[in-house]
Amino acid sequence: MALQTISLNKAYGGIEGVYKHASEQTQTDMNFSVYVPAHREGTKLAVVWYLSGLTCTHANVTEKGEFRNACAEHGLIFVAPDTSPRGQSVPGDPANSYDFGLGAGFYVDATEAPFSRNYRMWSYVTEELPKLVAEHFPVDSGRQSIMGHSMGGHGALTIALRHPGRYRAASAFAPIVAPSHVPWGIKALGGYLGDDKSKWRKHDAVALIEDGAKFREFLVDYGDADQFLTEQLRPDLLQAACEKAGIPLTLRRQSGYDHSYYFISTFMADHLRWHAQRLGA
Amino acid sequence: MALQTISLNKAYGGIEGVYKHASEQTQTDMNFSVYVPAHREGTKLAVVWYLSGLTCTHANVTEKGEFRNACAEHGLIFVAPDTSPRGQSVPGDPANSYDFGLGAGFYVDATEAPFSRNYRMWSYVTEELPKLVAEHFPVDSGRQSIMGHSMGGHGALTIALRHPGRYRAASAFAPIVAPSHVPWGIKALGGYLGDDKSKWRKHDAVALIEDGAKFREFLVDYGDADQFLTEQLRPDLLQAACEKAGIPLTLRRQSGYDHSYYFISTFMADHLRWHAQRLGA
Repeated sequence: MALQTISLNKAYGGIEGVYKHASEQTQTDMNFSVYVPAHREGTKLAVVWYLSGLTCTHANVTEKGEFRNACAEHGLIFVAPDTSPRGQSVPGDPANSYDFGLGAGFYVDATEAPFSRNYRMWSYVTEELPKLVAEHFPVDSGRQSIMGHSMGGHGALTIALRHPGRYRAASAFAPIVAPSHVPWGIKALGGYLGDDKSKWRKHDAVALIEDGAKFREFLVDYGDADQFLTEQLRPDLLQAACEKAGIPLTLRRQSGYDHSYYFISTFMADHLRWHAQRLGA
Repeated sequence: MALQTISLNKAYGGIEGVYKHASEQTQTDMNFSVYVPAHREGTKLAVVWYLSGLTCTHANVTEKGEFRNACAEHGLIFVAPDTSPRGQSVPGDPANSYDFGLGAGFYVDATEAPFSRNYRMWSYVTEELPKLVAEHFPVDSGRQSIMGHSMGGHGALTIALRHPGRYRAASAFAPIVAPSHVPWGIKALGGYLGDDKSKWRKHDAVALIEDGAKFREFLVDYGDADQFLTEQLRPDLLQAACEKAGIPLTLRRQSGYDHSYYFISTFMADHLRWHAQRLGA
């Protein structure tokens, strides 16, 4: 699979790259970023997948995430995909809807017209992009982990729960944990997957846990000044589900922090240290 | 002097704020950002001034500079002003000229029409804004230092050389050191100060040193993959001038780094540690 380089910048001894490729899943060009720390020629590195939130592209975390220092220290590759297909031919109008369509793929494969043709972010992030990244970067595919923010936290949790053998660690900043029960999720899952709510359960972390999915443990941070906390995020629902299922959850309420990258960047290094321990990195 | 708060975000235990005020110097509203780390009530903190480069506002370093971790660690307030006056009434068209006018104030008080009314960034950064910041934030005005990038490195060096008693440290990332001799500087100083090159010398670090200005020492980093290195930056000229004048200069050539915030963020913590040592912070 071919890859086009958009930019390469040296940072913390490694290379932050932005790349473009023609995606078979989304039928569009897709951008993503990869940070590769300095490493000995021929060695393979553990990889952390970072899924972004509503309205974001790869660029938000790449510019504001403050992850490179910790990735360089621990020898971690850091991959940041886009959050939806984009382009003239893709349905969805961000000017009228920041929380559905462009910038809001919700990490599902849409089944509803007109979204089903392009909105295949589940298969893109779990199948197509991992193959592409493994082909072009020095990735040890046996040592992968996943994290995300908000909608991307939802993506990280659901992907980890459905691939417990593939990811050795999963964490999230201010994740949507029960999309079936909150406005962002109801709009997105309804729009992409249709009205039959039984089909939403595979894309709802709390429902997956209720239905028996397991993962070794989760780390979740949220800020108690997050404007979306009580209506959209509901970490209490994840806590209850994990307790009932016996899944270890480290849930940390961070006093005074909001939903922004000022919050994420503050705790990024701590999350990456936690991932590195579990990745043997 | 009144201050309007645009945003407040908790980060690394402190508060990153963006503020607006009506500037007497520029006759416009001006934005700037201030990071105040967590500190004991009633204590005053050392302050680092960061001057940005061409096309930047306060936002570039605020979002991409990765300075908050080190500022929190060392107890440093970090202030980032804008790079020019802005607004409908301000002459200068960035669409046609990224290196003059809006976003390119060059830290001088313009004497040439039509720029002399608004383009007073020298007095703004050295007089008006320090007074405003001292009034509203817990700053120890006896412990100040200054740093900058590119055009802002030019600003930091010239301001330090003309206020050796005020700033205890000065450093720069990829600074313009001899604007009288490079295209960016010739365009800007000619446009703002007129054709009489003798008037440019007070705004040219190398010329100031040649004319006898002193500073205790400088720290300067540049990347050898910086596209502006040989035509616009010319660190060799600063090195020669400092050697001749006996001013200690730590000039570091960073292999593979370019002119971007990927470069700046990599060495930001190191610069702030160097400033903190000299600020007794």
